[in-house]
Amino acid sequence: MGPGFSRRQKIAAAIQVNGSRIEQRIVALAKFGVDEKGRGYRVAYTKGDVEGRAWFMDLMRKAGLSPRIDTAGNIIGRRKGKNNALAPIAFGSHIDMVPDGGNYDGTLGSIAALEVIEIFNEQNIITEHPLELIIFANEEGGTIGSKAMTHGLTKEGLQQKSQSGLTQAEGIRTIGGDPDNIAACLRKRGDYHAWVELHIEQGGILEREKIQIGVVEGIVGIVHWEVTVTGFANHAGATPMNMRQDALLAASKLVIAVNEVINSVPGTQVGTVGKIAVQPGAYNVIPGKVVLGLEIRDLSAPKIEQLFQAIEKRAAAIAKETKTTIQFTREANESQPALTDKRLQQIIDKNAKALGFSTKYMQSGAGHDSQHMASIAPSAMIFIPSIGGISHSPKEYSTPKDMENGANVLLQTILQLDIEQLG
Amino acid sequence: MGPGFSRRQKIAAAIQVNGSRIEQRIVALAKFGVDEKGRGYRVAYTKGDVEGRAWFMDLMRKAGLSPRIDTAGNIIGRRKGKNNALAPIAFGSHIDMVPDGGNYDGTLGSIAALEVIEIFNEQNIITEHPLELIIFANEEGGTIGSKAMTHGLTKEGLQQKSQSGLTQAEGIRTIGGDPDNIAACLRKRGDYHAWVELHIEQGGILEREKIQIGVVEGIVGIVHWEVTVTGFANHAGATPMNMRQDALLAASKLVIAVNEVINSVPGTQVGTVGKIAVQPGAYNVIPGKVVLGLEIRDLSAPKIEQLFQAIEKRAAAIAKETKTTIQFTREANESQPALTDKRLQQIIDKNAKALGFSTKYMQSGAGHDSQHMASIAPSAMIFIPSIGGISHSPKEYSTPKDMENGANVLLQTILQLDIEQLG
Repeated sequence: MGPGFSRRQKIAAAIQVNGSRIEQRIVALAKFGVDEKGRGYRVAYTKGDVEGRAWFMDLMRKAGLSPRIDTAGNIIGRRKGKNNALAPIAFGSHIDMVPDGGNYDGTLGSIAALEVIEIFNEQNIITEHPLELIIFANEEGGTIGSKAMTHGLTKEGLQQKSQSGLTQAEGIRTIGGDPDNIAACLRKRGDYHAWVELHIEQGGILEREKIQIGVVEGIVGIVHWEVTVTGFANHAGATPMNMRQDALLAASKLVIAVNEVINSVPGTQVGTVGKIAVQPGAYNVIPGKVVLGLEIRDLSAPKIEQLFQAIEKRAAAIAKETKTTIQFTREANESQPALTDKRLQQIIDKNAKALGFSTKYMQSGAGHDSQHMASIAPSAMIFIPSIGGISHSPKEYSTPKDMENGANVLLQTILQLDIEQLG
Repeated sequence: MGPGFSRRQKIAAAIQVNGSRIEQRIVALAKFGVDEKGRGYRVAYTKGDVEGRAWFMDLMRKAGLSPRIDTAGNIIGRRKGKNNALAPIAFGSHIDMVPDGGNYDGTLGSIAALEVIEIFNEQNIITEHPLELIIFANEEGGTIGSKAMTHGLTKEGLQQKSQSGLTQAEGIRTIGGDPDNIAACLRKRGDYHAWVELHIEQGGILEREKIQIGVVEGIVGIVHWEVTVTGFANHAGATPMNMRQDALLAASKLVIAVNEVINSVPGTQVGTVGKIAVQPGAYNVIPGKVVLGLEIRDLSAPKIEQLFQAIEKRAAAIAKETKTTIQFTREANESQPALTDKRLQQIIDKNAKALGFSTKYMQSGAGHDSQHMASIAPSAMIFIPSIGGISHSPKEYSTPKDMENGANVLLQTILQLDIEQLG
């Protein structure tokens, strides 16, 4: 450790998380929420989620935290600091899962956050700021818990069905929240000194580039369009090739155009056509109508708009060429890009390097609770490699060593944040 | 009428069908088989089909035919000739309909065949050969009646569900057939002097080229392949564009390749991708698997194979380029091309021209009962224009004048056949 680091940092770097305890808890938590086919099913508000949360809260209690459940169902455990008038440093993640999901998404950040608390306990470290470990409710179903805490949930939002089959309100009640007083969980700017979330990358960049720690610059904005291609359904035998208005042929050209437009400019933007449906949908009928789903993600909202305009332009030419019409309907559920705190990024990068890790500044292509927390507090995310870039799948995997590395960076970041003035 | 035509033809040409009677009957038959939304639903074996058949058999009786129902449910009405030892000349079509279908497909040929009988009655014409008016059962559900008559139906085939919800056996019984003795309806080569079917084109060629009569050279063969494109489902936000194995992007390139290959050689071949399904099928997941349906039709079976091989070759390149696999599974239900009788084609062409109509030799891109009849008798089809080329739709339409023209060509063809030695 060179001259650029303070005595404080040198002492802190000597404190290490217990990697095998993290790994054991990852395995232990994976046993909660398994469907009849043996697949992971810790979907928010279901039995597995309720049981996994109970197990986690029990560990929190053993670590001296007295977990409470806010009205949105978020689990919050507070550890006192030396100066409890200060806004707390918050960190954590979520433990719910997509259907047939993996064992690392969310759980790593949750278990590592608890590990940090336990190391502080073991090392008799009392931070200046109080600490809050937060396990957000129903992250996978639309970052519901963090949305409730930062922006609030509407009555309509509470009545929406969740993946569990329950409405959000029913689900929140099932996990101990109080949907009738949902606004009571709201936090505002100033309530937190900072928010930090450790997470698996869910992409393959860190693994491919052999980088140990990703410093997240922001969480991309996401916009969805429902695209309707209208041609003319006709007999596939009796209609010559040059007399067709084939909606699927037009849609196929559009799928390729989306790919070409997204790849036509430098950057890390992504564009996906993930779903498609054709009418009437028979071997012997020329497709009359195709509805497809277009998604664009980027850290820059104007860039998303520019890419979409380029796609729209290509679509107009395709429609003309194929004698079809192509119509785009923007979905209401778009999310704005959320930038993480620059100073926090630097702290993570510097501390990771001090621990001997390679780092890379990168974006999060996936949505996270952190994107909402960024609206009320200086926020940051730490990424570790996902093997094969696989996520939302039983094949999701991160090595014990990478998890340990990430937890150590989280620990050092919390210690450094404790002595920093932020934003 | 010039010197190329015999006295017989000159007399025959003076006999004309009653166009308005044909038109009135088209309208009358359309009232049978209407669903709760007012759409045409004279689907084989349903109430509308049963009632429409009863109405048609009543007209046959009034025309002096004593209709019988064979064991497959086909309606057959015989009119004696001068020499009843001769094999009969058969003609007709079908009166069942696809769901939400039109009022001309099948019904024109059926009503025009009855019209020919009635004109012969009114003109006191007794042909040398006996005549048989045949209304085939369940044409739209897979040319079931004509298949039973020419090739037979298997026990498995009889147990298949029809569009009506009934099995073929149950359906055949509902319309007065006897599925337990299905083989009794079989006819063999020599049983018919000839078979002629008048039909709407179901394509837009005749209308576009302003031609009145299509002389059908054959009915295309049809081969279906189920195509499975396998990529890798992954997070659409976290997976960079250059690390994707997008099954829908590959499938889109294949759809375009099919179109290009089919259009790359001269001829009237058609190739269609009419259905597509994507897994998992969400905005935010890169498609991992796509299953699509490929159909190729042509009058030449070797040409179908050549086109398919070219598509397979393109698919291999697309799979390589997109890091996916593309697998083709040929469906069992393929139908072989069926060529109509050359001499019969000439008779139709000559008689149509004698009536002052423009003609065009063309293929039938749609399947018809005639393709099966061609396996046991010299067979032919006469086409008339379909407005806009629209078929299997409530918008299906042919003008009264075109229908009258077609019926007159059918009438003259029957008269000419009666004095011809055929293949």
